[in-house]
Amino acid sequence: MTYADNAAAMLSALAVTPDWPRVAGDVIDTETLDAILTEAAKLAEGQVAPLNPISDRIGATFADGKVSVPPAYLPVYDALAEGGWLGLEHDEALGGMGMPLSVFTAVNPLFERACPSFMMSAGGSRAAALLLSAWADDDLKSDWVPALVAGERCATICISEPEAGSDVGRIRTKAVQDGDGWRVSGQKIWISFGDHDIRDRIGHCMLARTGDTPGTRGLSLFFVERGPGVTCERIEEKLGLHGSPTCALQFTDAPARLVGQEGRGLAQLFTMIRHMRLTVATQGLGMSLAAYDVAVEHAEQRRQGGKPTEPAVPIISHPDVQRQLMAMKSRIDIFRLALLEASVTADLSDEDADMGRLNAWLLPLIKNFGGEMAFDTAHAAIQVLGGAGFTKDYSPEQYMRDARVFTIYEGTTGMQAQDFLLRQSLADEGAAVALFLDRARQECAGDDARLAVLDRFDALATSVAGDTDRTHQFEIADAFLRAGWVAVQTWLSKRIEDTPEAAFFMKTAAAQMELHIAAAG
Amino acid sequence: MTYADNAAAMLSALAVTPDWPRVAGDVIDTETLDAILTEAAKLAEGQVAPLNPISDRIGATFADGKVSVPPAYLPVYDALAEGGWLGLEHDEALGGMGMPLSVFTAVNPLFERACPSFMMSAGGSRAAALLLSAWADDDLKSDWVPALVAGERCATICISEPEAGSDVGRIRTKAVQDGDGWRVSGQKIWISFGDHDIRDRIGHCMLARTGDTPGTRGLSLFFVERGPGVTCERIEEKLGLHGSPTCALQFTDAPARLVGQEGRGLAQLFTMIRHMRLTVATQGLGMSLAAYDVAVEHAEQRRQGGKPTEPAVPIISHPDVQRQLMAMKSRIDIFRLALLEASVTADLSDEDADMGRLNAWLLPLIKNFGGEMAFDTAHAAIQVLGGAGFTKDYSPEQYMRDARVFTIYEGTTGMQAQDFLLRQSLADEGAAVALFLDRARQECAGDDARLAVLDRFDALATSVAGDTDRTHQFEIADAFLRAGWVAVQTWLSKRIEDTPEAAFFMKTAAAQMELHIAAAG
Repeated sequence: MTYADNAAAMLSALAVTPDWPRVAGDVIDTETLDAILTEAAKLAEGQVAPLNPISDRIGATFADGKVSVPPAYLPVYDALAEGGWLGLEHDEALGGMGMPLSVFTAVNPLFERACPSFMMSAGGSRAAALLLSAWADDDLKSDWVPALVAGERCATICISEPEAGSDVGRIRTKAVQDGDGWRVSGQKIWISFGDHDIRDRIGHCMLARTGDTPGTRGLSLFFVERGPGVTCERIEEKLGLHGSPTCALQFTDAPARLVGQEGRGLAQLFTMIRHMRLTVATQGLGMSLAAYDVAVEHAEQRRQGGKPTEPAVPIISHPDVQRQLMAMKSRIDIFRLALLEASVTADLSDEDADMGRLNAWLLPLIKNFGGEMAFDTAHAAIQVLGGAGFTKDYSPEQYMRDARVFTIYEGTTGMQAQDFLLRQSLADEGAAVALFLDRARQECAGDDARLAVLDRFDALATSVAGDTDRTHQFEIADAFLRAGWVAVQTWLSKRIEDTPEAAFFMKTAAAQMELHIAAAG
Repeated sequence: MTYADNAAAMLSALAVTPDWPRVAGDVIDTETLDAILTEAAKLAEGQVAPLNPISDRIGATFADGKVSVPPAYLPVYDALAEGGWLGLEHDEALGGMGMPLSVFTAVNPLFERACPSFMMSAGGSRAAALLLSAWADDDLKSDWVPALVAGERCATICISEPEAGSDVGRIRTKAVQDGDGWRVSGQKIWISFGDHDIRDRIGHCMLARTGDTPGTRGLSLFFVERGPGVTCERIEEKLGLHGSPTCALQFTDAPARLVGQEGRGLAQLFTMIRHMRLTVATQGLGMSLAAYDVAVEHAEQRRQGGKPTEPAVPIISHPDVQRQLMAMKSRIDIFRLALLEASVTADLSDEDADMGRLNAWLLPLIKNFGGEMAFDTAHAAIQVLGGAGFTKDYSPEQYMRDARVFTIYEGTTGMQAQDFLLRQSLADEGAAVALFLDRARQECAGDDARLAVLDRFDALATSVAGDTDRTHQFEIADAFLRAGWVAVQTWLSKRIEDTPEAAFFMKTAAAQMELHIAAAG
């Protein structure tokens, strides 16, 4: 499927997303959205996609304390900036296009299909622009947000440290007051595009500790600009995403500005975390589209089998190959609907508390299963290609390597499962699960097969809620996450119920649910 | 777990394999086997394992028509040869040690844990020695087999061509008579160690077409030595196994000797194919052991979580991490039993037709699921390591790349599924399935949970056998293969029924079976 096909599929998916019209409102009509998607498809295919092999083969390099990206990145970053793509979802008052988040998530899979390594260069700036818009004082906001949105400067989010990965509360980086400002000292790792030569000015949004309060409550958000006191120590040598430099940054009495309130650092990150999770979901969808496309094309062209006295037939005519392709496409088509549901509920969160609750419940699912889908689809594409798939003559091996991090960064599968079970599903006496089941049952009214799967998830959730053994809850969190995802797919596949892709999923939906229930036993 | 632990686990597994005493007979006692495993563990850990990072970073290189391997390979190949490891399972009369195949499969996972790329150098020679022992005339046999077994020369198996991968019947390489001998012309691809500098003399066992008979019946087996008329054109650039050169060889009127009977080439390959599939199964087990070990070690050392006011706890104390490690170990422990069952039945094949039938039925299962286990275990180890797992500072990323080919070469998953369903399960009115169910039910007598899973597989097999739609059979072959594997694991886990690993598997065995039955619907 071409990029244009992908854009059209996104439009069709929005058309069956019931709350999309509430989001679109007077802000955007279908014609405009179509035009935006068409433009994005052109730019992604024409300019971003050629960067993908370069991002892997050349990659980012580190020398003399500085990071260089492949020079081919620069004109494409300019093109993204000039087209307004970096500010799609940001406030018009700050130079953005003021579009709903849903437009960003509808568009972004096209760019992620083309080159996720390169697109990571925009990820930090987007997230930082959001953070600064929400929490920075007017000076900092008006100085940096328009510059980020216009692509004149770049920014990062610095959270992890060597001893503080999933366990954010162990952050040791210290901030001490210095006159009107602050100075921070400490090491931050896993910083994507923490240093590079796309732009000179790079701002770092970072968590640091201001006093003696232990854990996450002692953390505040700071803004530090690249310059004296900020050193890039190395970039990681990784399995994939070679074109996205992963930096270790050392801060030594670096001049810093407090953003928002002291001690509220982690809480303030939440809108950004939502954006990051949605972005990973778009990466997952984008890379799945890329891998699926290569698999289909190869299956149409590669000839093997058939009667030995006649020319070999294209392998796509073999039932087992058709099954493999259908398994990929079924996941993709249902995931697209979930991505949009999570986006639309995000857009409606401010005006509708229920939507906010449902959104928070959906986020760990689409983050994790978007990531898993990308890896699995690339893996499946390699299998369709056979021996050729194991070589670097074809792209799926790169896709698989690049995608491997999607279920690690921005919170591992284990972290998503814990969030999904403890913070989202069990909190408030299961209000989010009740809300989900309500909506899902309403949409699936009269559909006994789907209702039965939802009932089983309901029973599982009830039983887990009655479980007072916290260790057991941690043990089964992964199974519960997977059961939740089967339930969500059962619900959303109803929106495309007449397609073979929905039928393929429903063939095993009940059995998948039982498998996860057994694992949670 | 150390290499010595792995050796001990193998001894324990043999001890619960009911037919092992029939194989061991007077040939080998437990003490000797223990000594062999202990020696192998030492050699694997001390000399082979250090090659693994080198195999990946330096890898094999190609220049001026010649392949070079990392120089560090050479002394280790000598050590393998001197220790008699290359001839473990070969006839004593031809210089081998005359051990049962089961001893080879018990020992080999230790070497494969250490460095699968390097061990590929021995794979072709082993297979060729078997082939020549069985089919070559006395001259060729006595000239080459002892030399291969002693590690003085090397050999390959050449089957695939650009237009003949899974579809062997489309081989175009031609052999024409030339006086007493033959000359072959054509291109062969995917030849592991098709050229290298470990030894000067390399013999190629290859399939070529002698007349006009189309398909596999026109194929005969030839032996061609490296020299005039044989050119290495390139090596493939691959995702993994960089230390195992994958060659494209061009044969141009190369002098050749017919091995065995004209037109019987493919049939003659069968003992070798059995050996190859068992070897891939040992690769799968070996690499799983390697990845599991890294995951456990990391989980014991890495500290995250716990109360923020106290030192962080080792992540192995987190229930979700324990679950991840148990999932790996459960698969490994049950697979080890299956590898041995497949080996023991292979050893008894000649004297017991039922054993031969059961062996042929088990081979596609252990070949495929050994491969899948290796990949999945490496993948799971990356997840336990988190961000660190995505870097090249740790080995799981290499394991995952190396393992990706295990479900592709020596017959893809699709080919194994087709073999398992059509040739093994449906043939002879389901005799193999009946035999399997008989043995499994006998061992599981009184165990209702296990018997119920076996009954469900029985019902599936019966229903599939009654299905006359060939297209549908091809469609469901993959699901049937997976159902068969659940049935086999259900059976064999009985042998370690009191372990947490068996209990972990059985928790979801019935649900797994239902999932595959649903997929086969």
